[in-house]
Amino acid sequence: MDTINHMKKFMEPKSIALIGVSRSTEGAIFNPLGNLLSYGYSGNIYPVNPSANEIQGVKTYSNIKDLPDDVDLTVILTPRGSTPSVVKECVENGLKSIIVVAQGFADSDEEGKSLQSEMVNSIKKGGARIIGPNTFGVTNAFIKMSTALARLKIEESPIGIISQTGLPFLGTSRFKFGKVIDVGDTCDIDVADALEYLKDDPETTVVVLQVEGIQNGQGFIDIANQVTKKKPILALKSGRSEAGARAAQSHTGSIVGKDEIYDAIFKQCGIIRLDDIEEMEDFSLAFSQLPLMKGKGVSVMSWAGSTGVITVDACEKYGLEVPLLSDKTINSIKELAPPDWLPVNNPIDLWACVGLSGFNPRNFKSAFKKILEALLNEEKTNAVLIIIPDYLALFNSDIWDISSVMSEILEKYKDIPIVFNILGPWDELTEKLEQNKNTVVFRSCERAIKALSQLYRYSEIRGIV
Amino acid sequence: MDTINHMKKFMEPKSIALIGVSRSTEGAIFNPLGNLLSYGYSGNIYPVNPSANEIQGVKTYSNIKDLPDDVDLTVILTPRGSTPSVVKECVENGLKSIIVVAQGFADSDEEGKSLQSEMVNSIKKGGARIIGPNTFGVTNAFIKMSTALARLKIEESPIGIISQTGLPFLGTSRFKFGKVIDVGDTCDIDVADALEYLKDDPETTVVVLQVEGIQNGQGFIDIANQVTKKKPILALKSGRSEAGARAAQSHTGSIVGKDEIYDAIFKQCGIIRLDDIEEMEDFSLAFSQLPLMKGKGVSVMSWAGSTGVITVDACEKYGLEVPLLSDKTINSIKELAPPDWLPVNNPIDLWACVGLSGFNPRNFKSAFKKILEALLNEEKTNAVLIIIPDYLALFNSDIWDISSVMSEILEKYKDIPIVFNILGPWDELTEKLEQNKNTVVFRSCERAIKALSQLYRYSEIRGIV
Repeated sequence: MDTINHMKKFMEPKSIALIGVSRSTEGAIFNPLGNLLSYGYSGNIYPVNPSANEIQGVKTYSNIKDLPDDVDLTVILTPRGSTPSVVKECVENGLKSIIVVAQGFADSDEEGKSLQSEMVNSIKKGGARIIGPNTFGVTNAFIKMSTALARLKIEESPIGIISQTGLPFLGTSRFKFGKVIDVGDTCDIDVADALEYLKDDPETTVVVLQVEGIQNGQGFIDIANQVTKKKPILALKSGRSEAGARAAQSHTGSIVGKDEIYDAIFKQCGIIRLDDIEEMEDFSLAFSQLPLMKGKGVSVMSWAGSTGVITVDACEKYGLEVPLLSDKTINSIKELAPPDWLPVNNPIDLWACVGLSGFNPRNFKSAFKKILEALLNEEKTNAVLIIIPDYLALFNSDIWDISSVMSEILEKYKDIPIVFNILGPWDELTEKLEQNKNTVVFRSCERAIKALSQLYRYSEIRGIV
Repeated sequence: MDTINHMKKFMEPKSIALIGVSRSTEGAIFNPLGNLLSYGYSGNIYPVNPSANEIQGVKTYSNIKDLPDDVDLTVILTPRGSTPSVVKECVENGLKSIIVVAQGFADSDEEGKSLQSEMVNSIKKGGARIIGPNTFGVTNAFIKMSTALARLKIEESPIGIISQTGLPFLGTSRFKFGKVIDVGDTCDIDVADALEYLKDDPETTVVVLQVEGIQNGQGFIDIANQVTKKKPILALKSGRSEAGARAAQSHTGSIVGKDEIYDAIFKQCGIIRLDDIEEMEDFSLAFSQLPLMKGKGVSVMSWAGSTGVITVDACEKYGLEVPLLSDKTINSIKELAPPDWLPVNNPIDLWACVGLSGFNPRNFKSAFKKILEALLNEEKTNAVLIIIPDYLALFNSDIWDISSVMSEILEKYKDIPIVFNILGPWDELTEKLEQNKNTVVFRSCERAIKALSQLYRYSEIRGIV
């Protein structure tokens, strides 16, 4: 079986065997059987436990050799000491895609190293593959399946992640990953293998890497080069610092190598490197929900001039531009501004043009729409950022609720990224805006601009601009 | 009257005259009279409007000369054209602390420049002072007072801000400013004057600057040097880039000067420069709620090793350290870990030491407390970061709810900053933790470390370490 078919058995199993699953329901959050049932996984589940007939209403098997023939994926939950013999037995019984959850192997002591060699020898002989050890395995929200010990919030999303203990990044409401491959300590399946699966996976349009080290450098470079021609790869490579590298060594046994080497490899492959967890959140949302930027021009609608100035600074910092508007656009906007107002240009001060226009906020929505459409029709506008402060919600929030206007605009202008920053926590408006699948509400204007700049950068990588 | 006494009239007025206040209640969010009433300001309010006897139940005056004698603060809300004559009349009637809200003066056209000179001449002759033009004036939450046109959420806080159109930064739930001085286009009162007030203000322990340009450089340096010896100054200086500087010029008429000059001035004065709005939020919360760091050592309790590694990277990036633990501490923690677990050290993997300990999460809270106290008793611990993922809330969140343990610990260890990062939006736990006034829940582990690093840096500035 080639890598891609092995990966499909891991990621899209019709049947899963759980070896060493606990009968305990006390710590049930740590029981993959209970978790699979709670997600609503519709494939077959075969728990193996010598001292039970059923667990949580599911028939159990006493021995690996008694398992039905149709097992696609095997998850081994036994402690490290007994795991190599369990792996051997699995291989002998024709189980070919195996997840080893336990830790304490090559990342630990001499005994662990030797136990790991034993496992690897078994699978090499039998043509089987292992994900792990020290892993939570795989998640595929499209079939309501996760092998993670922890119970997660599973939700379909076009963002796929290859991680080394990606647990903290799963299941939270801002980070939705449709597919997760936790390669763990990579005794066999590595980042390159996982990339091979996500490359042609039609359900995944953005690939995130969260890794401490990469093995098989040339294999990784070859496949990454192919992936980035189809979909973006965003990489959070930790263990950057000397101290971090030491911590990674004790955590996943990764030899992390010099950080500059990773910079060079990522650049060569067209991979976008992430500086921190918030960039992972922002950029993956941007790539999964927004069209690419076809040029550098950002038009800004700010509330108060100060955030406009801060946004202009951010554009320059991240290589974007805030182009001057055409006379036509300026004149159409000026009609809305009070007569002695400041000169109208990009960034547009909404407070000026609308808030004070006759001091009549009831005109706000129509003026807002007129300005936004004027900006979107400007040739130099490749993206629009709209900044709204939450204090508007304190007083007649209906007047300021632009969500219905935005639904209409987002439906009409699908080729230009239109994004938001809401200053302060105006949850109600944020939720309404986020119901539109082709926008993102960012937590600051600087973060919005940084994410937009990556939509331009990837256009360059792809040779679109 | 010297500057400090003028500033006290602006910031702590017993009576406020509002000149040109509108009768309209349609756009009542823009009516400072309605706003002052809604906040519950207990001083006298004297609206001046020639065509009304009362507005919103408050007696109005037809003329400035009819106003009572006890006016401390005068807010002029007339359009720019009539404002200079109103200012003149105010000065002639002995009003000495005046806020000019209108814009379109020196930042606008030739006529605006000449109107501004006229105003400045009037106050120079009469010994009066102006805040503005182009300003929302002042806010003092301790007396439930704000002159802002927009209605804000007013809440007492030891964070004071001097801003140029600070409107977007006010009233949101993460940004609480007890005192706000929006110096606007600074035709008279400037940043240095405002600093003079906050320097000795007992209700303010942290000073934030949000400025596009600083006038009177030597005066600023002199006073800033005095302030930073007593309380930290955090400065967001926008208009950094060339394009941003152009935008600032049209926004507040500020000549922003080369950005490097500001870097040098801030350094010389011991001012901490902010890179973005999120740093403003994080650092001001840190300084207002946490003790300073007396050394570089951070102890980390992470959930899963990957965030531990990412945190170690962040510590190195921001000049902090993750010290190795003493044998005594390691042994007391090892008692809680499963026998073949990874080596125990800093960062401590809570998942390893507690979550899996007998797979019994009911032991979580007592183990958590034991580990945390061991870390706090380590000599090399100068701060603690605790990282918790929100998916724990999906399953029996009571077991994982550490808020009562934390209340006890935070009461006991008041000299060491103890902070959190919750991965994902676990609002209930966040709110409970934030009820403790001496901790901060940060949005990412990197942001937590960056903010902690400033608590160490300011210890250096103050010569404490």
